[in-house]
Amino acid sequence: MEVSHQEIDMALVVHKYGGTSVASAERIKSVARRIIATRRKGDDVVVVVSAMGDATDDLIKLACQVAEKPNAREMDVLLSTGEIVTSTLLAMALRAEGHEAISLSGAQAGIQTDANHSKARIVAINPHRIKEELHYGKIVIVAGFQGITPSNTQDSHAPSSTGMDITTLGRGGSDTTAVALAISLGARACERYTDTAGIYTADPRAVPEAVKLSEISYEEMLEMASYGSKVMHPRAIELGQIYNMPILVASSFNDAPGTLIHGGTMEVQQKVTAISHDMDVAKITIVGVPDHPGIAAGIFEPLAQAGISVDTIVQNASVQHITDLTFTITKGDAEKALNVVRPIAEMIGARECIADTNLGKVSIIGSGMQNTPGYAARMFSTLSVAGINIQLITTSEIRITVIIDETQTKRAVQVLHRAFELDKA
Amino acid sequence: MEVSHQEIDMALVVHKYGGTSVASAERIKSVARRIIATRRKGDDVVVVVSAMGDATDDLIKLACQVAEKPNAREMDVLLSTGEIVTSTLLAMALRAEGHEAISLSGAQAGIQTDANHSKARIVAINPHRIKEELHYGKIVIVAGFQGITPSNTQDSHAPSSTGMDITTLGRGGSDTTAVALAISLGARACERYTDTAGIYTADPRAVPEAVKLSEISYEEMLEMASYGSKVMHPRAIELGQIYNMPILVASSFNDAPGTLIHGGTMEVQQKVTAISHDMDVAKITIVGVPDHPGIAAGIFEPLAQAGISVDTIVQNASVQHITDLTFTITKGDAEKALNVVRPIAEMIGARECIADTNLGKVSIIGSGMQNTPGYAARMFSTLSVAGINIQLITTSEIRITVIIDETQTKRAVQVLHRAFELDKA
Repeated sequence: MEVSHQEIDMALVVHKYGGTSVASAERIKSVARRIIATRRKGDDVVVVVSAMGDATDDLIKLACQVAEKPNAREMDVLLSTGEIVTSTLLAMALRAEGHEAISLSGAQAGIQTDANHSKARIVAINPHRIKEELHYGKIVIVAGFQGITPSNTQDSHAPSSTGMDITTLGRGGSDTTAVALAISLGARACERYTDTAGIYTADPRAVPEAVKLSEISYEEMLEMASYGSKVMHPRAIELGQIYNMPILVASSFNDAPGTLIHGGTMEVQQKVTAISHDMDVAKITIVGVPDHPGIAAGIFEPLAQAGISVDTIVQNASVQHITDLTFTITKGDAEKALNVVRPIAEMIGARECIADTNLGKVSIIGSGMQNTPGYAARMFSTLSVAGINIQLITTSEIRITVIIDETQTKRAVQVLHRAFELDKA
Repeated sequence: MEVSHQEIDMALVVHKYGGTSVASAERIKSVARRIIATRRKGDDVVVVVSAMGDATDDLIKLACQVAEKPNAREMDVLLSTGEIVTSTLLAMALRAEGHEAISLSGAQAGIQTDANHSKARIVAINPHRIKEELHYGKIVIVAGFQGITPSNTQDSHAPSSTGMDITTLGRGGSDTTAVALAISLGARACERYTDTAGIYTADPRAVPEAVKLSEISYEEMLEMASYGSKVMHPRAIELGQIYNMPILVASSFNDAPGTLIHGGTMEVQQKVTAISHDMDVAKITIVGVPDHPGIAAGIFEPLAQAGISVDTIVQNASVQHITDLTFTITKGDAEKALNVVRPIAEMIGARECIADTNLGKVSIIGSGMQNTPGYAARMFSTLSVAGINIQLITTSEIRITVIIDETQTKRAVQVLHRAFELDKA
């Protein structure tokens, strides 16, 4: 491809706008104005968009009305139209403001995926067409959440010269599209605009004095994402981390500075960066499990087959070859999980199954905690002073998580926020 | 491509379902059952679908909310999603009934068009993928109304290896897709199912005793389409005529036999096949036009530029180089047309402009009328006996049209229907 001097001199930035930011014609026009402001600063802009508001849910509803279990290949084509609609409307809005813009589907943008319909993985990006349109001075709008297989996927034994099937990337799909495009195009950053203003030291709804972080490391953000923060799917963050692509998380409704997720040195920062929590926790304990090989697999494989996502697993120390096995799940899965686990428990001779569906989870997160003692002790003593009983503890290198009573979760976040002086960030 | 014996032995039929036939999940399921019934008779089936109900109008509304004049290239991508949605839902419904089915976009179906966005013409069809899917025993559902350019259309000077832009075919688009695919695939027929049961000797709302025709020639149908019958766009019929592809027009809501449009010998048929009418007629007469070359162009070019579609044009015989020029348009265009024509009339020294917006149009149609005298006389005398005054007359080889008072239009159709004994068909 020809490369103009302009292209070499100018920086490129990838914007991504979520569903609520493009939920109406008015909001799309407002997003257009934000993009134009960026363009005026001299950056080339590639924009990734989600489907408008509830558009995806509406399409799913329609599919479920024509078929009990809609075919995955067809479902992907159906859902891909949601993001295409947004991309064309945003391109129209930009053109109405006098700016050259063009919408591209995932396929046109060169996003090639494997053939795992509804949860495809990006295998390669051929950004030829995007570069071509940028070269001609255009703002490029890419429909997020979707890609295309190199050949048609239904009959892998068929001649496939004309093939090529549309896929969708599953949860966190549009964020993944944006980060992957930013990497592939050598963008200076991926900026993700939604109704969330950034990453806070704790959920502001639980801790009013929570402070918006100006930056956070990929590792910390990943622990935030996995442990209760719903801001961004881990998948896109992992991708950013592997290729060291800075990701800005900011609001699309105002110009307040957001949070930059990046890989910079965090040594100078305070040791605990943030506290995350989750109120949707249930616990199942199988009491008196004979402790011999294969028992765990015999329990967790059937749970996985039933589509139940298990979060934390704790097995207590074995006394005389008898152990207690505890795992946590979402409250909605508790009854289903009990139905799966009870006959197995009986079969392997366990004493009983106990469920507790009134739990919460609180984590302190910070890459500075790594190899540094004392954080756990401070966390546990803070909770103890507040009269909060800890039911389970799990840790990673940069995170300490406790499972506690649901009703005490918010207060736990508040006392820990003060104890680790996050309000003074 | 490999060709199986099955493919050689089996006949192929193309079905097309219009917007009202697929307006809800329930109707899509009902269409699926019709297709399955055809499949069971042993035919291979390719199905072309329109967008659901008002889906296209809803998308246009949305576009007009983000931009006053939405960009044509973006509008095409936007509108193309409507037919794609229907195609996936129908494929899902067929699969739910246990039949292998696959949806293809216009692009995947190999429908290549020129780059005239919003009114593209099909230039070629590469049905490789369709044949491949048929070969594997699938029912193929194609999104109508759309195609793809061989390369991207925005920068024809750009390197275009990755290009390819979505186009839409404009009015009558999905019918055209269906007939073109039928031709390209060598189908035995193209069957078009809508809420219209077939072609009648006259509009049943005007003439209760109107009879559904079992067959009609392409030529007659073309005159019907151009002269008031809204059943099918002339474009698809012309295509059928050129390649001699039989087109069945029938209801998607019941199993009553429809009307076959084909090129068979019509000699044995009665001479007048049907009567069509249109109540939406306005007339503008420019009185006292100096009769010299260039005058007509000076009037009709500005009308065309203003987007006004002129139907009939009549210029009365010139007396002393002064003539009256009359043309008809739809009522909605009358005021706009007057505004265009008045200053021109003044400039060229015409006496005045007179508009009449209360007119109707009635045509008798029949390929048997060709070179056969007497039909016009019978038509005019029938109208005269009924006390209906004729304002304008135009004819083609197989059609005679009169412009009359709007309030007399229905009665004119009724008396002509009896006079030409169409109720005895």
